[in-house]
Amino acid sequence: MKIAVIKETYPEETRVALIPANVSKLIKAGLNVTIQAGAGELAGFDDVLYTDAGAEIAPGQAETLKDASAVLTLHGYGSALDTLLPALAPGQTLIAMMDPLAGPQVAQQLAQAEINGIALELVPRITRAQSMDVLSSNATIAGYKAALLGATHSHQLFPMMMTAAGTLKPARVFIMGVGVAGLQACATAKRLGAVVEAYDIRPAAREQILSVGARPVELNIEAENTETKGGYAKEQSDDFIARQQAAMADVLAQQDVVITTAAIPGRKAPVLITETQLQAMKPGAVIVDLAAETGGNCALTQAGETVVHHGVTILGPKNFAATVPNHASQMFGTNLTNLLLLMAQERGLNWDFEDEIIRDTTVSYQGEVVNARLRELLGLA
Amino acid sequence: MKIAVIKETYPEETRVALIPANVSKLIKAGLNVTIQAGAGELAGFDDVLYTDAGAEIAPGQAETLKDASAVLTLHGYGSALDTLLPALAPGQTLIAMMDPLAGPQVAQQLAQAEINGIALELVPRITRAQSMDVLSSNATIAGYKAALLGATHSHQLFPMMMTAAGTLKPARVFIMGVGVAGLQACATAKRLGAVVEAYDIRPAAREQILSVGARPVELNIEAENTETKGGYAKEQSDDFIARQQAAMADVLAQQDVVITTAAIPGRKAPVLITETQLQAMKPGAVIVDLAAETGGNCALTQAGETVVHHGVTILGPKNFAATVPNHASQMFGTNLTNLLLLMAQERGLNWDFEDEIIRDTTVSYQGEVVNARLRELLGLA
Repeated sequence: MKIAVIKETYPEETRVALIPANVSKLIKAGLNVTIQAGAGELAGFDDVLYTDAGAEIAPGQAETLKDASAVLTLHGYGSALDTLLPALAPGQTLIAMMDPLAGPQVAQQLAQAEINGIALELVPRITRAQSMDVLSSNATIAGYKAALLGATHSHQLFPMMMTAAGTLKPARVFIMGVGVAGLQACATAKRLGAVVEAYDIRPAAREQILSVGARPVELNIEAENTETKGGYAKEQSDDFIARQQAAMADVLAQQDVVITTAAIPGRKAPVLITETQLQAMKPGAVIVDLAAETGGNCALTQAGETVVHHGVTILGPKNFAATVPNHASQMFGTNLTNLLLLMAQERGLNWDFEDEIIRDTTVSYQGEVVNARLRELLGLA
Repeated sequence: MKIAVIKETYPEETRVALIPANVSKLIKAGLNVTIQAGAGELAGFDDVLYTDAGAEIAPGQAETLKDASAVLTLHGYGSALDTLLPALAPGQTLIAMMDPLAGPQVAQQLAQAEINGIALELVPRITRAQSMDVLSSNATIAGYKAALLGATHSHQLFPMMMTAAGTLKPARVFIMGVGVAGLQACATAKRLGAVVEAYDIRPAAREQILSVGARPVELNIEAENTETKGGYAKEQSDDFIARQQAAMADVLAQQDVVITTAAIPGRKAPVLITETQLQAMKPGAVIVDLAAETGGNCALTQAGETVVHHGVTILGPKNFAATVPNHASQMFGTNLTNLLLLMAQERGLNWDFEDEIIRDTTVSYQGEVVNARLRELLGLA
């Protein structure tokens, strides 16, 4: 069975879907791997490293895709998919990020073209699938980079410093939402020496906050049913959010850097910092909004931009993983490799829909939208 | 005696020469302090904080300067001085950074206008003057920010991470030159979890490198007289530099991030990384060149720019301290306050040239260039 890795076409994308170490593993498992020439270049992986690992190098996209059973890419939706789709042959399988909960139409688009689609965002949050979870990988990178970005823009140095010019107080950093990204942001800000506090509506987060050396902030307001079956934070009522915002204003006014990470898959991000709260913050404070791409946790965030309101700098970074191409490709490629090793058989992929991982991630199969959540979103259920 | 703090006019400057805590101290010592309205705004210090500390607020520059004995500013040279000088009255004292070793003409310019000038860069490197050493303060900030900048641009995450997507190897960071900036860069990269190595031609640096948790790199080449009386690295012969570069090439080829900090006061920075060495580095590697403003330690550095050559990103940052205005103003203001407390008397400044600190820092006094090093550079000795 041939696996094809194309060179990314998405703007400013620097990653590659498999690294040479992944190729070795797949070849050992009996698969063939073809890499489009130059696909790994921006991530630090020359063609020769892929050849050494046992891959074929194909000069262009067409040769790479020819006779492939599975095609791997980072971005399998939007303009990147529009470009790729005409080059794919019916019966081929596309494995990629597809943002399917925000844009379920991707499943119809693939089904219509008779492409089998596997959307990596839909990997279930179960122990067996942890090694395939690209969202966790991306969140790890985003949390780390968010702390660096906060430190870079802060008007303070993060660590306490005892210098000949007096003692500098450590910066105060506050993390809102402690999923994978939030915890990594806590850990990184702590490494840099800041005083780190964190908040999450899920009571279970308390232990996790403590485990990375940060202090959990208590608002003394009650919330119920804060966690979904999958371990994500659940959307809250307007009333709860209002009480939360009031109690939060005092906390925010103390901070030098605030990192927000509250995202709900497929939905607009909740506003955690209103303009009123912003006005009470210290002049010179910095907000890093990791939910910028889905509307922002701060009311004044602009995705991909740096804006200043009421003396507070608000950063809305996009596609953080692409800024760390080497390690990000390693993580993405390893996630993909683990999924391929689950599904790959001698003659093709195993479409065993009894397996929760295969059932949940498959969005289209043999010309049909097959994923239950997407069928519901599309009104096909 | 009136001390005046003006609002900075230098492009993109965000700092202020005194913070409110400094003002309290000076007032307790019997001085009067006038702050130009808005001078501390960008550094996070509102006028009201200065008033609370006992300062007068003057609406404009002219009112601030009127009848002041000493005028404090960050940049007392170049276009900032050209703008300020006509507003000063003969007999006033200007205390500022003046870059006097690179541009000794500043002393003549001040002497001609009968302004007494104190150049903060000339504070001697003696124990008693440590608390007045603005170069050390700036170097502390530059080293910290250089490590952050390297981490931000690196294709790797700095810390080792054991994730569900496999183990990520820590980044390798190499610091060339371990003065105050280099040691701070070591410490910060180490905090972030990188594998940190460092090199300095001064054998005494070995202990200092170990003290911040980094590994000293040995090149097995001999150097003599590597340290000046003042504790700076001494300029080396061409032959020594050639041998150093050859031995260094192998070390550089292993690194993900290289931070260079070799500067010689008043001279062009030595080239530590040639284009040949650069070509042998990993694609995706990052160089942060802290000597960019004095010509650069890498042959291809451009001050204030980010350039990519042979796959290596070369950053040439300028005026790092202004990116951390709050803490940088605290450090600068504290240095200045300590110097003022040494010199201030009831009726004016104490020009006791028997005191090494006062003698070394005074560049012009009563219409004459008085500093011995500058007189020599200007051909007046």
